[in-house]
Amino acid sequence: MSNRRAQKGRKELPVQGPKSLEPFFDPCAVAVIGVSNDPTKIGSIIFGNFLRPGFRGNVYPVNPKHKRVLGKKCYTSVKEIHGSVDLAVIAVPAQAVIQVVKDCVEKGVKGVIIISGGFKETGPEGAEREEELKEIVAESNIRIIGPNCLGVYNSTSMVDTFFLPEEKAGRPKIGSISFVSQSGAFALSTMDWMAYQGVGISKCISYGNGCDVNEVDLIRYLADDPATKVIVIYVEGITDGRKFMEESRKTIVKKPILIVKAGKTKKGSVAALSHTGTLAGSDKIYEAAFKQSGVIRAEGFQDLFDMAKTLSLQPPAPGNRILIVTNGGGAGVMIVDACEVCSLEVPELPSHVQRKLKEQFPPHFSTKNPIDLTGDAYDLGFGIALDEACLRYDGVDGVIICLLPQVPKLTIKVANIIADASFKSRKPIVACCMGGEFTANVSGEIEKRGVPIFPTPERAVDAMWALVKYGENLKKGNKR
Amino acid sequence: MSNRRAQKGRKELPVQGPKSLEPFFDPCAVAVIGVSNDPTKIGSIIFGNFLRPGFRGNVYPVNPKHKRVLGKKCYTSVKEIHGSVDLAVIAVPAQAVIQVVKDCVEKGVKGVIIISGGFKETGPEGAEREEELKEIVAESNIRIIGPNCLGVYNSTSMVDTFFLPEEKAGRPKIGSISFVSQSGAFALSTMDWMAYQGVGISKCISYGNGCDVNEVDLIRYLADDPATKVIVIYVEGITDGRKFMEESRKTIVKKPILIVKAGKTKKGSVAALSHTGTLAGSDKIYEAAFKQSGVIRAEGFQDLFDMAKTLSLQPPAPGNRILIVTNGGGAGVMIVDACEVCSLEVPELPSHVQRKLKEQFPPHFSTKNPIDLTGDAYDLGFGIALDEACLRYDGVDGVIICLLPQVPKLTIKVANIIADASFKSRKPIVACCMGGEFTANVSGEIEKRGVPIFPTPERAVDAMWALVKYGENLKKGNKR
Repeated sequence: MSNRRAQKGRKELPVQGPKSLEPFFDPCAVAVIGVSNDPTKIGSIIFGNFLRPGFRGNVYPVNPKHKRVLGKKCYTSVKEIHGSVDLAVIAVPAQAVIQVVKDCVEKGVKGVIIISGGFKETGPEGAEREEELKEIVAESNIRIIGPNCLGVYNSTSMVDTFFLPEEKAGRPKIGSISFVSQSGAFALSTMDWMAYQGVGISKCISYGNGCDVNEVDLIRYLADDPATKVIVIYVEGITDGRKFMEESRKTIVKKPILIVKAGKTKKGSVAALSHTGTLAGSDKIYEAAFKQSGVIRAEGFQDLFDMAKTLSLQPPAPGNRILIVTNGGGAGVMIVDACEVCSLEVPELPSHVQRKLKEQFPPHFSTKNPIDLTGDAYDLGFGIALDEACLRYDGVDGVIICLLPQVPKLTIKVANIIADASFKSRKPIVACCMGGEFTANVSGEIEKRGVPIFPTPERAVDAMWALVKYGENLKKGNKR
Repeated sequence: MSNRRAQKGRKELPVQGPKSLEPFFDPCAVAVIGVSNDPTKIGSIIFGNFLRPGFRGNVYPVNPKHKRVLGKKCYTSVKEIHGSVDLAVIAVPAQAVIQVVKDCVEKGVKGVIIISGGFKETGPEGAEREEELKEIVAESNIRIIGPNCLGVYNSTSMVDTFFLPEEKAGRPKIGSISFVSQSGAFALSTMDWMAYQGVGISKCISYGNGCDVNEVDLIRYLADDPATKVIVIYVEGITDGRKFMEESRKTIVKKPILIVKAGKTKKGSVAALSHTGTLAGSDKIYEAAFKQSGVIRAEGFQDLFDMAKTLSLQPPAPGNRILIVTNGGGAGVMIVDACEVCSLEVPELPSHVQRKLKEQFPPHFSTKNPIDLTGDAYDLGFGIALDEACLRYDGVDGVIICLLPQVPKLTIKVANIIADASFKSRKPIVACCMGGEFTANVSGEIEKRGVPIFPTPERAVDAMWALVKYGENLKKGNKR
């Protein structure tokens, strides 16, 4: 493992404020506490993650029972390590955690991720143990993520405390979405899903019981993180609503925040209580708080990541007037329906725009909104429509394209034409592209060039709604 | 091409009623009118489709301009063909269609699919032409699908008038969903999507302007079609609401009908008018009609096919009491939320059931509903949960399983365990399985065994809702 960065000399990090979280995301030296010679144990998997080529800092295994693990010198305690340690990852039985954390404080470790469970989620004894952790935090400069969590994944520094092997749980490519999750399982399956779908991530944080670092701290950190363009949050409950709102309000003028709050209904909040011991609270209060602070709420998993992808690729919409360009009349109608349901306007195009379109199109193409290129659609037809009715015309704020690439005259070239228009336009463009294998190729090409693609009309409309909503929130936020 | 069936001797088909549609789906002899030597032309592609090994009847190319096309003897008119012709597929310019149809009547052709456009969708002249078609139908025994349509795809007889080559538009495998679409583009992209997703189809019918055969005739036919288990319909408007309701009511006691009606909103219905000239009408009236006749309405494309897949694989639910088995607490909460939103009950399990679960599970598994096997979930854990709380216990009507296969102890074997429970149970089971590649393998194995799988909690809940809804409709329908 390279020593380069570790030797560069450490700058002193301020202990308060978002900068105190830096050791979690970009540490020069990491201790993994609870590594054993069994490579399937949690500590060993995490240690192995830090040995992968991506991570450029030092990593030290700690376990009092062993002199060497997995071929490396093993330390009996974090205190024995010679160099400084920025981050300690703890995967030891709950009973041993407190002493280990105290050792970390003594050593001057900046951040601790406690993977171990056995705290407030298990009953009174665990809750007491968790209180002890809180006391340690209050009396020292140390910051804690967890306990009872999966910790941190950072796609650029390759900090990766997710203790599932890559064969079972994929790691997403580098991207600009950061994901904060109260639920470890949810973080895990989301990461795996994003990897599979080719959606990039910047950072993923599973903060578990949140005895110290919670969603508010993480929002504050990610707000100033240049690698994060969109913040996505899964919570069952929020500890400090006032601070959450305050921090969100400040953040959303820089980047959008998307949230899913489980335990939305009465039954759901009972289930949440039994899951993480979180009081989900009245949903109406949450709804109002999200609205006031400009946080965009998703209805579910798919919605959440559709919106995240879109906001990471496209600019917010300056207004709600949507142009639809389609080559399937039926799908066009479905888009109009879906727009009306979520209060997006589909304005008529003025006669001078329609005239210009008519001059270039065969007579059976519809030049109204939706512009319908019919089954005779050709690649350049989409270019003409976008040029005349979006680039040269100021009366629409965003475009939804519906592409059925199966028709005879459409080829893969249409991807370039759409991407080109999106590149030239300051207005957002999203697309839906329905079909099979050929469609998947066309979709892939379009999305690669920055236009988010969805397999159904409704999902494309929901994505556009997010861009319109964020545009609105931004205006409100900037006025404050 | 085989002559076997054509020689078997034709039985006389009754001209009225659903049987008159049989020549469209299972013809012994087909004439394709408008075949040329250019293999990219519509008529030639359709002719080529009938030459594929799957189709077992005779097929004759017709075109007065050619003696031979694509290496086969070509007929100047359908009347010249010696044997009987059950089905004629017409792909000639609109102006020539009427004469060709008249020839078909003279020849005694039973069914005609008119692919050609240029009828009521193009203005007054076309509308007049369409009226002529209607007159021909009224004065003869012939049935017409179209004009301005893609026609018929039957996965078993391999009637396939969809004129897009398979590289661009896939053909789904054999299945039990039949799809009736007013929109050709929608039918096309749906077929392509189904092929890609591995969802099977029985029949797909794009009926275009519907000058004769319409959605009501097709429901009546599919109601008695043993290969069809679920009927799926896309319409922008319904011609005869009373008949539609009557036919649907009769059908739904045999098999479910799912519908998407585009042009739902005011703006959407204006767009529909410009698309197919269909008066979409007041949505409230449609909503009430669907409800009264037991037709299940989908909100959009994804919803429609999620429900169709589910209804084709699982039995209707006898009630709305849902058991949830999960190994992700957060996802469990999201399922509870989604259940409450669509009025599915998540009842507490009685103490005797919980006791039996506790006896077999480690103490940190939750035996409430949701049953939560946590990150320590093991394959057989799902089996135990399903056995005790579904198979042996009568207080639930259906099960939603949420599987996060990334956790250490779960293996591909869980697929067998879940499938086994579904096989033994008369109650429906659906599952959601979130993640990446390994998850996709597990999902594939489970769905192969008949349990529908969805990538998000919400979609699984919507699928279960369809089973509950169909169960209710069935009870109501059987009482009538």
